[in-house]
Amino acid sequence: MRIVRVTDGTNETYGFVKDDKIAIKSEITELTGVPIPINVKDFLFDGWYEEIKNKTNELEYREDISKYKLLAPIPNPNKIICLAFNYVDHAKEQGLQPPDDPALVIKPRTALNHTKSDIVCPDFVTQLDYEIELAVIIRKDCKNVSIENASEMIFGYMIFNDVSARDIQNKDKQFTRGKGFDSFAPCGPWITTADEIQNPQNLKMVTKVNGEIRQNSSTSNMFIKIPEIISKITKVMTLQKGDIISTGTPAGVMLNKPNAVYLKDGDQIEMEIEGLGTLNNTIKVIKSN
Amino acid sequence: MRIVRVTDGTNETYGFVKDDKIAIKSEITELTGVPIPINVKDFLFDGWYEEIKNKTNELEYREDISKYKLLAPIPNPNKIICLAFNYVDHAKEQGLQPPDDPALVIKPRTALNHTKSDIVCPDFVTQLDYEIELAVIIRKDCKNVSIENASEMIFGYMIFNDVSARDIQNKDKQFTRGKGFDSFAPCGPWITTADEIQNPQNLKMVTKVNGEIRQNSSTSNMFIKIPEIISKITKVMTLQKGDIISTGTPAGVMLNKPNAVYLKDGDQIEMEIEGLGTLNNTIKVIKSN
Repeated sequence: MRIVRVTDGTNETYGFVKDDKIAIKSEITELTGVPIPINVKDFLFDGWYEEIKNKTNELEYREDISKYKLLAPIPNPNKIICLAFNYVDHAKEQGLQPPDDPALVIKPRTALNHTKSDIVCPDFVTQLDYEIELAVIIRKDCKNVSIENASEMIFGYMIFNDVSARDIQNKDKQFTRGKGFDSFAPCGPWITTADEIQNPQNLKMVTKVNGEIRQNSSTSNMFIKIPEIISKITKVMTLQKGDIISTGTPAGVMLNKPNAVYLKDGDQIEMEIEGLGTLNNTIKVIKSN
Repeated sequence: MRIVRVTDGTNETYGFVKDDKIAIKSEITELTGVPIPINVKDFLFDGWYEEIKNKTNELEYREDISKYKLLAPIPNPNKIICLAFNYVDHAKEQGLQPPDDPALVIKPRTALNHTKSDIVCPDFVTQLDYEIELAVIIRKDCKNVSIENASEMIFGYMIFNDVSARDIQNKDKQFTRGKGFDSFAPCGPWITTADEIQNPQNLKMVTKVNGEIRQNSSTSNMFIKIPEIISKITKVMTLQKGDIISTGTPAGVMLNKPNAVYLKDGDQIEMEIEGLGTLNNTIKVIKSN
């Protein structure tokens, strides 16, 4: 299923998406007879999705999804963990070996953003860059997970744009500030549940800027694969239900390239990962004070 | 005031501390007549503290604080932001210039820990180190705060131990994983409200390991001062009420020192910052699996 968090401009709700139609919470409750909770996190991670799953053939998908504004699927994750240098092709273009342990950066919640919205960047940033990434959403609290059991911890997947101010990350060495601006974590457009994705390590991924292809790779180029990522992170920290792990970006970003063309005001970014939909954002440069 | 979050082993509550006595929530409500909320975050940041403040002379501080276990003062902050290399003496011992913009690392919530508890470290970590820091607790949501207005955003202060696995941070270059282990963010022992601290840039700070002084400095050695830290961070990200900013550590850590003596199982760490109390933790090394 594809689970989407939406607003009609007044009220926030959630539902299932099929093609360009949506079955929202009230329809789901009406047609399945299950009084699913108001809060999407309760629905996703407290067993309600599993309860409803076998009854979804009763849904009618009554409304056009265009009636709603799509929101970041997880409203308040405890953690947003991003991996640096986890694609063979990206490490190669940077002249690096991918590390055998995941190099992590945490983005603040305040960076969360959704599709069809602006990535807002103050004008003191001089090198604004994109990073298409496959994000994993954690299903339940876990620690010291084995590689064998890691897949059980995955609720679903979505696209994640790990927007990065390269001038700041290069200056600081630590990447947290350059990646931590408000709006620098667009994700979605929805959660695709894990059962829909046959092989998460073989998904095409394409980034276009103003229609021009910039990244064109596959999750098969990931160096540390998803089960090992989960296993290695949970040797360090407890993962909690709703946590987002963004698994690194492939080649094609502008970082440290000669003749780099960084993002500028008005640029349209379109990111597609096979089976997960499309994430669309526009760059909006604002005057800093 | 000194505001403490505690448990009696069954129920969590909070109160004010005076010497070694505590006035807990039920006493505060009884003697002031104000029905303060159950949740400490609501009390701290939704105006209740201000409402009660002038009535605190009515309190009797009826109980010994030793009857309670002290907890991390903020149970679920949206952000725990740590500064790297922000002390003149620490940067000097590392042969570095302190950066003029704050280099940030975010610790996950799952790292939170309290006083008189174990810092639990898996045995694959080979270089475990301490960092005494002055932590600032943010009072209200804010963005683009000027240096002049920054002090208004501070609710209070506490001690923060930015526990760090140096072998991992040196390997990863990014510090997030090495600083992100569960239990690697002991803080407290309580929040001292901002009005109690005349000059937060002139507080003595001492770290002892097994009684031996290892760090002995002052917040006067901070390079970027607190108002500028808040101003610079909020040019990037929105700070939210309850966010913790830990402002960097002075000289005396073991990082990259010849003949470094890293922390080992059973080591007792005592951290004191003038006016803020003492934070006590014990190292517990566990077998990793």
